[in-house]
Amino acid sequence: MKLSELAILTGGTIETGNGDTEIMGAAGLDIAGPQDVTFIANPKYTPQIAATNAGAIFVAKEAQINREDIAVVRTDDAYVAYTMALRAFHPDPPVTSGIHPSAVIGENSKVADDAQIGANVVIGDSCEIESGVRLFPNVTVYDGVSIGKGTVLHSGVSIRENCQIGAKCIIHNNTTIGSDGFGFARTPEKKWLKIPQVGHVVIEDDVEIGSNSSIDCPSVGESRIKTGTRIDNLVQIGHSCSIGEDSLICAQTGLAGSSEIGDRVILAGQVGIAGHLKVGDDASITAKSATSHDVDEGAVVSGIPAFENRDWLRSTAAFRRIGEYAKIIRKLEKRVSELEEELKK
Amino acid sequence: MKLSELAILTGGTIETGNGDTEIMGAAGLDIAGPQDVTFIANPKYTPQIAATNAGAIFVAKEAQINREDIAVVRTDDAYVAYTMALRAFHPDPPVTSGIHPSAVIGENSKVADDAQIGANVVIGDSCEIESGVRLFPNVTVYDGVSIGKGTVLHSGVSIRENCQIGAKCIIHNNTTIGSDGFGFARTPEKKWLKIPQVGHVVIEDDVEIGSNSSIDCPSVGESRIKTGTRIDNLVQIGHSCSIGEDSLICAQTGLAGSSEIGDRVILAGQVGIAGHLKVGDDASITAKSATSHDVDEGAVVSGIPAFENRDWLRSTAAFRRIGEYAKIIRKLEKRVSELEEELKK
Amino acid sequence: MKLSELAILTGGTIETGNGDTEIMGAAGLDIAGPQDVTFIANPKYTPQIAATNAGAIFVAKEAQINREDIAVVRTDDAYVAYTMALRAFHPDPPVTSGIHPSAVIGENSKVADDAQIGANVVIGDSCEIESGVRLFPNVTVYDGVSIGKGTVLHSGVSIRENCQIGAKCIIHNNTTIGSDGFGFARTPEKKWLKIPQVGHVVIEDDVEIGSNSSIDCPSVGESRIKTGTRIDNLVQIGHSCSIGEDSLICAQTGLAGSSEIGDRVILAGQVGIAGHLKVGDDASITAKSATSHDVDEGAVVSGIPAFENRDWLRSTAAFRRIGEYAKIIRKLEKRVSELEEELKK
Repeated sequence: MKLSELAILTGGTIETGNGDTEIMGAAGLDIAGPQDVTFIANPKYTPQIAATNAGAIFVAKEAQINREDIAVVRTDDAYVAYTMALRAFHPDPPVTSGIHPSAVIGENSKVADDAQIGANVVIGDSCEIESGVRLFPNVTVYDGVSIGKGTVLHSGVSIRENCQIGAKCIIHNNTTIGSDGFGFARTPEKKWLKIPQVGHVVIEDDVEIGSNSSIDCPSVGESRIKTGTRIDNLVQIGHSCSIGEDSLICAQTGLAGSSEIGDRVILAGQVGIAGHLKVGDDASITAKSATSHDVDEGAVVSGIPAFENRDWLRSTAAFRRIGEYAKIIRKLEKRVSELEEELKK
Repeated sequence: MKLSELAILTGGTIETGNGDTEIMGAAGLDIAGPQDVTFIANPKYTPQIAATNAGAIFVAKEAQINREDIAVVRTDDAYVAYTMALRAFHPDPPVTSGIHPSAVIGENSKVADDAQIGANVVIGDSCEIESGVRLFPNVTVYDGVSIGKGTVLHSGVSIRENCQIGAKCIIHNNTTIGSDGFGFARTPEKKWLKIPQVGHVVIEDDVEIGSNSSIDCPSVGESRIKTGTRIDNLVQIGHSCSIGEDSLICAQTGLAGSSEIGDRVILAGQVGIAGHLKVGDDASITAKSATSHDVDEGAVVSGIPAFENRDWLRSTAAFRRIGEYAKIIRKLEKRVSELEEELKK
Repeated sequence: MKLSELAILTGGTIETGNGDTEIMGAAGLDIAGPQDVTFIANPKYTPQIAATNAGAIFVAKEAQINREDIAVVRTDDAYVAYTMALRAFHPDPPVTSGIHPSAVIGENSKVADDAQIGANVVIGDSCEIESGVRLFPNVTVYDGVSIGKGTVLHSGVSIRENCQIGAKCIIHNNTTIGSDGFGFARTPEKKWLKIPQVGHVVIEDDVEIGSNSSIDCPSVGESRIKTGTRIDNLVQIGHSCSIGEDSLICAQTGLAGSSEIGDRVILAGQVGIAGHLKVGDDASITAKSATSHDVDEGAVVSGIPAFENRDWLRSTAAFRRIGEYAKIIRKLEKRVSELEEELKK
């Protein structure tokens, strides 16, 4: 691809360098070669510019590059431009349409002619698999499931009965969608009576879910993951939860049942959310934190239980010294008692 | 089902309303329609009674319902009665007995005539699969495994060599039973020498295990999950653990090796239990907590490391203000020094 | 095996007992019978020696055994000797070479004649499966993967495109190697634009990975797990991470992207490591801790965020009493104010 084409594709403008230069790939500052485009987004990495072998670089409005041998493409957001370039150099592999002879397809299921159904895939009854869907080997789809255009399910994924998967989703290996919610009524004899879990999960369009994650169905109704949301590996989403649009849920985070997460929420790694809560739009919960209360729109919270991040930072700094403070307090008590004695005299 | 039949089934008594009314389903206050029965268990939801469209409602002894158009069924426990109704409306699907032609069954394995063995299931040698068992597609059962009457294994489940699964269990998708315990001896050269893990896992009757969980086998002997226990998704049970009866282990909880959990214990989400511990009967550990010590019978503990929940609540409340306290302590030190100076004069 | 042979095998010396005694197995003090060898490594278990039925015992240099009926084998490390004995009594099962007729093998893939390829295994194109490899049923291997001599992949494992697995590795059930790293660029419209993840994972020789774990591939380049490292169940390793040799990563630990873990590092259960960090050789992070900073070589750290373990122990002890301290501080404030008033008079 010519540099000039790349600039058009990414909405950038060539500031220095020849638009006819051939660019063959995109890579980080440390790996990029003379035919690669790289980027600088974080000023922390500015010193690496002196040493990079890249042929071209995406830079944001304010950045200065002191290398005359590197073509400079100025953009609004260098990281987004770099991602667009990387996507252009690594397009999705073509769909190899057809059903592998070892795949098993149930009754009354429709599979689009140009879908790709891998070896040993099992699809139940009354399913609908749309155009361009790719099911990798050993995927299991239960009865009554629909899978929208262009969605990819990787090997080992299980989609349980009646779940609806939208278009252009990616679900990575060994993830389970629609297993039974963890719902039991405790009898007077302290036994756990299973509450039937006959609802289903709806995954809207353009959702990506990592490997080995679990998204449960509810007793009645639905659990829903909205358009544009990204979920990482080993994540637990309990029954009846709803996750808004364009949210980011990092690895090993867990949601108990019936919580409602807003749009553009960020839950960092290993976060916990108790049941029946609301997390407002644009809120963030930092890594390893857990909340048992609602979180306001736009809030950033931390800790177990979580509270305002700024206060938490101050508390954790003090926490390191509470052993010390305890000593000081005991000394102060003694000194005050002595003063009191002294004054009584 | 007639309301009168439902009352008999759930052990309730019709207080108002016609016993001949047809009830077609059970649902929550917000979703239920005129032919559904609903319930009120938590007084928090009392305001929703005014707006519900339900035709009938289960209520506990003490509750008052001010809606003459809704049939009232009084019961000991409204939530248990509702669950019983939901179970009556959603019975387990019938077993479709037979072995799918793509399934592979090893030598000397017995599969009951009325078991359901799905597509691409693989069963090893010398296994015993009892009556009414349902193995969904892509389940793998290693050699020497027994699976008791009416148990369900969902797609992607792996049962390792010689494990014993009881009757009426449900194991959800992609869960692993009997993978090797994490046991190594460290050599003088600081290498980890694998300790053979040749024990097995015993799951007793009526146990439910969520999706993507791991229960390890021990080096010798057994790991055991007792009757009536419920385990959620993404749970880790280390080698040689024993979990008592009717316990509840919520998502993403992890147990290191050789711990012994009592009966009716509740481990909330993301809890951690160190190795070689005892957690007494009826104890609870709250979400995101971890214990490195034994927990007494009936105790409720919290925190990392965990201690008595009541104290932990007080400590976490104070934790939010320790930055503030640190300031006060420093000021007090100064004031006390000034007083001491003053008195010396 | 004769006791004398066992002594030679484990590098021990028979102190008391007949070298011709037949030893049939190895087991813990509480389980071992007259034909078993047992061990004592932790003085805590010394009282159990009086009651054991073992026929022989491995003991370290300093330990004393007051049982004349038990053969004593003195060794440098009783636990390592016991492990070596257990390994001798439980050798790896023989490889049953051959490709099951239900397995599906892609184009241009080489499978060694003496590899064992189980039922319903699917291997992609251009793979290389070396001698003595055992793939259990329902394993999926994508295109371009290599698997080294003697490696075992258990049922449900997925190896994604172009990953390299070394020799003598063991990967337990339902684990995913090489799923896409969790990398997105946020657009000005606050959408998450997927960064192509076209790198791969390299697992070196003699690595063991537990069940239901996820190891992601990077956008470009590699994620690497070095020789001799042991990884437990439900572990998350993000894109571009590197784990050194002979490290131990316990269950439910998670690493965000681009972190570099040294050699012989121990990460206990449920630990979290933020992105772009370095954890030095021989460092340990205790259970349930999380670090957002680099960790020095040999350091032992704890807490969220983690700091020196010794200090953390002191802080957590004081934490239990901070409610109390808060009260004392308030009282001290009052007493100091009173003293100040008094002195003003």
